[in-house]
Amino acid sequence: MIRGIHHINLLVRDLDDAMERYRRMLGVDDFIIDSLEGRAVRTARFRTGDSWIVLVQPTGPGEPQRVLDEQGEGLFLLSFDVDDLDSAGEHITQAGGALRGEPRRGLEGWSVIDVAPESLCGAQIQLAEDAQKND
Amino acid sequence: MIRGIHHINLLVRDLDDAMERYRRMLGVDDFIIDSLEGRAVRTARFRTGDSWIVLVQPTGPGEPQRVLDEQGEGLFLLSFDVDDLDSAGEHITQAGGALRGEPRRGLEGWSVIDVAPESLCGAQIQLAEDAQKND
Repeated sequence: MIRGIHHINLLVRDLDDAMERYRRMLGVDDFIIDSLEGRAVRTARFRTGDSWIVLVQPTGPGEPQRVLDEQGEGLFLLSFDVDDLDSAGEHITQAGGALRGEPRRGLEGWSVIDVAPESLCGAQIQLAEDAQKND
Repeated sequence: MIRGIHHINLLVRDLDDAMERYRRMLGVDDFIIDSLEGRAVRTARFRTGDSWIVLVQPTGPGEPQRVLDEQGEGLFLLSFDVDDLDSAGEHITQAGGALRGEPRRGLEGWSVIDVAPESLCGAQIQLAEDAQKND
């Protein structure tokens, strides 16, 4: 059902500083800078292997800002790649798990839905369907 | 310098319960069960895409138990795949970053070293050299 890590989100306080550090220390030089107004975040993502790493700076009230305030910077979310978001979500609820909220648009037209953390041992797990990948 | 996500560690309190949930909800059925006595953990890992997901249950005092006690279950560590651990570590320190501790043996003979969280915006980032991958 899952076919890889679609992306990982890392919360940062200062996106420019974070990019500079990833550039300097890990040699990352191909950031795509973006924003998601619905989530109140600025983002910078880069590709590594068959996954995206997304650095996320909250810019206003919302779930990312709340988590940053409560837990500080660091790993925020693990998003698994699925080929069909609806059927994957349905599989989880039929297996006794729960989804949190409705499917929403992520960066670059990704369709994503969050799994309720209590379903998978406290982890922030998400499912992502990537139209580009399915083309 | 980094060429993909080598593995992600997720802390869980009960490894058997966690495997059962990943099986049932995400369709994962090929766990490799292992342990690392030096870290005082039991682990269950599975492959997804070109990465490993490692579920980690602390079994005694150590860094994983400390983090579980302080932060609870969930995402613990992001390990990037590098082809040469020594030169990657040296690159980070020459770029003004810091490593934490010495290189150590991970699961299955992986060689790993932790980057100091303050170097990369609070995240638990690790580098891993995988002898099998380099063969």
